[in-house]
Amino acid sequence: MRSTVIHGAGDVRLEDRPDPVIIEPTDAIVRTVATCVCGSDLWRYRGIGDVPKPVAIGHEYCGIVEQIGSAVTGVSVGQFVIGGFYHCDNTCPTCRKGAQANCPNGGAYDGCQAELIRIPNADGTLVATPELPDESQIADLLTLSDVMGTGWHAAVSAGVGPGMSVAVVGDGAVGLCAVLAAAQLGAEQVIAMSRHEARQQLAIEFGATSVIAERDEAGAAKVRELTEGIGADAVLECVGTEQARLQALACARPGATIGTVGLPHGELPAAQLFWRNVGLAGGPAPVRAYLPALMELVLAGRIHPGKVFDLELPLAEVAEAYAAMDSRRAIKVLLRP
Amino acid sequence: MRSTVIHGAGDVRLEDRPDPVIIEPTDAIVRTVATCVCGSDLWRYRGIGDVPKPVAIGHEYCGIVEQIGSAVTGVSVGQFVIGGFYHCDNTCPTCRKGAQANCPNGGAYDGCQAELIRIPNADGTLVATPELPDESQIADLLTLSDVMGTGWHAAVSAGVGPGMSVAVVGDGAVGLCAVLAAAQLGAEQVIAMSRHEARQQLAIEFGATSVIAERDEAGAAKVRELTEGIGADAVLECVGTEQARLQALACARPGATIGTVGLPHGELPAAQLFWRNVGLAGGPAPVRAYLPALMELVLAGRIHPGKVFDLELPLAEVAEAYAAMDSRRAIKVLLRP
Repeated sequence: MRSTVIHGAGDVRLEDRPDPVIIEPTDAIVRTVATCVCGSDLWRYRGIGDVPKPVAIGHEYCGIVEQIGSAVTGVSVGQFVIGGFYHCDNTCPTCRKGAQANCPNGGAYDGCQAELIRIPNADGTLVATPELPDESQIADLLTLSDVMGTGWHAAVSAGVGPGMSVAVVGDGAVGLCAVLAAAQLGAEQVIAMSRHEARQQLAIEFGATSVIAERDEAGAAKVRELTEGIGADAVLECVGTEQARLQALACARPGATIGTVGLPHGELPAAQLFWRNVGLAGGPAPVRAYLPALMELVLAGRIHPGKVFDLELPLAEVAEAYAAMDSRRAIKVLLRP
Repeated sequence: MRSTVIHGAGDVRLEDRPDPVIIEPTDAIVRTVATCVCGSDLWRYRGIGDVPKPVAIGHEYCGIVEQIGSAVTGVSVGQFVIGGFYHCDNTCPTCRKGAQANCPNGGAYDGCQAELIRIPNADGTLVATPELPDESQIADLLTLSDVMGTGWHAAVSAGVGPGMSVAVVGDGAVGLCAVLAAAQLGAEQVIAMSRHEARQQLAIEFGATSVIAERDEAGAAKVRELTEGIGADAVLECVGTEQARLQALACARPGATIGTVGLPHGELPAAQLFWRNVGLAGGPAPVRAYLPALMELVLAGRIHPGKVFDLELPLAEVAEAYAAMDSRRAIKVLLRP
């Protein structure tokens, strides 16, 4: 089967690799219907993350169950399934608290930009659609593997609820999904911060009530203008850089919470958070916790997070997919094996 | 009138000072019935906080309104009142969000370990009891000026609610009040961390279901033993040192929130918080937000936070009050003018 392998900065290749096989009785093999490139894959592509040796890459996918281990009872061959970027047993105390991204019996996995994938902890990880989805639903469903669940986690971590004002820092696929999440969770004001016209438009489609192109203090001042002069009740930080975190803090009112899902780089302004009574919560999204409810919203046609894919390519052109996202020519690229 | 003045490390004196007078029409003058020494006063007493020149000290009090400015309508002369350690207008957008400790029209004030105090923003700051309280209620009511509201804020910031497991780091007056708050807010398990027998006993009186004497990893391991092996749903950090914050993090399960109210010293372990999905929230307590509800609990005899006072002295012995708290001979000292 063909699988995407990263060899180093700027060097991803589609290569022939042996088909994955069932190793543990709890494994399943999934034939991917669609996969995609994540913003976090770009860390290695850009040479910021290490690539000590060539490694299969990718962690977002949906597909058809091709084979199951002897202990798997929750999904069956032929079903259409989605799994999060972190496998989990979904039964341990940590998972039962809704913190599946920290399941002590789970783990991260890679190699999903491929035709076939081995999924450990299949029963805990995979969620099947009630029937095979329509072709038009594939892109929406694929986002539930990571970006939509991650945007949702930002909003849940920040305690977003009805009537609240929410500012979103970051206009990548996760930031846009966070806009969608905030709107779905009942926020009265959803303020998207973006200066890219296509992303601004999509933010509005997703439910943003205002778009702010300014950054830094000018951007924060605009947020305050929209929020009785005090800042937003919740801020969703979907980038992870120190600049983005300071932007989020500047946009938050006293007593607000910042929901953060961008991989953290740099230190936190501990004293400022404290004196301004601004909370910070979040981390890797427990996608599995949100998957069933989000799947229902997608299958009912109530949300279309798949609009974050503004480019679709055959898996054979995976190198171009990385290049397009790296240069910000594309927000997010869907790949078809 | 007599007022406590700090001259430098280890040097507090009761001195004769001019009676305070109404300056703004929104001021009130309060004759203190009781006041006390705060753990945060000890920073200056211990020479960690600067004392560039002698200054009147103290910010916790309850007393009788002696005089009001021409614009004050919410309290009247002769009423028994309590105010938080930060005055606020209680009407601006920040206050209406429940973040009164960050009121842009408010401020901190000092000089409350005295016979008379000038309270700015009297209408926004002071809450009067329906009638003059019984002598036996004074200690309980005095805690609502700071420590009980601060312990409550730790619990509210951590999202404590029914059925939750809560660990409390810090066995000072605030930590003990946080134990009481967690129990009142419906926590199923309240785990107090203390190795002082008197404080352990008080924690149990306040609703602790377990007491852990161990610290560091041994303490965290004990918390995990009590919480299905994963850590507490919420941790209340009532100290502020880096060690206390790391202790709190070690006791928190993935997805938990740390409510923090200790004045922050040192940096935050940003990456650990993120990867473990542990949130952090809190800051100076919006005492005014909690005062009415807590006053009701006290007047109904349902909570007795005044038990944190294990020493009562006349105001004339204020120097001994500081010395007793500094040496940990007393948890908290109540002073009578």
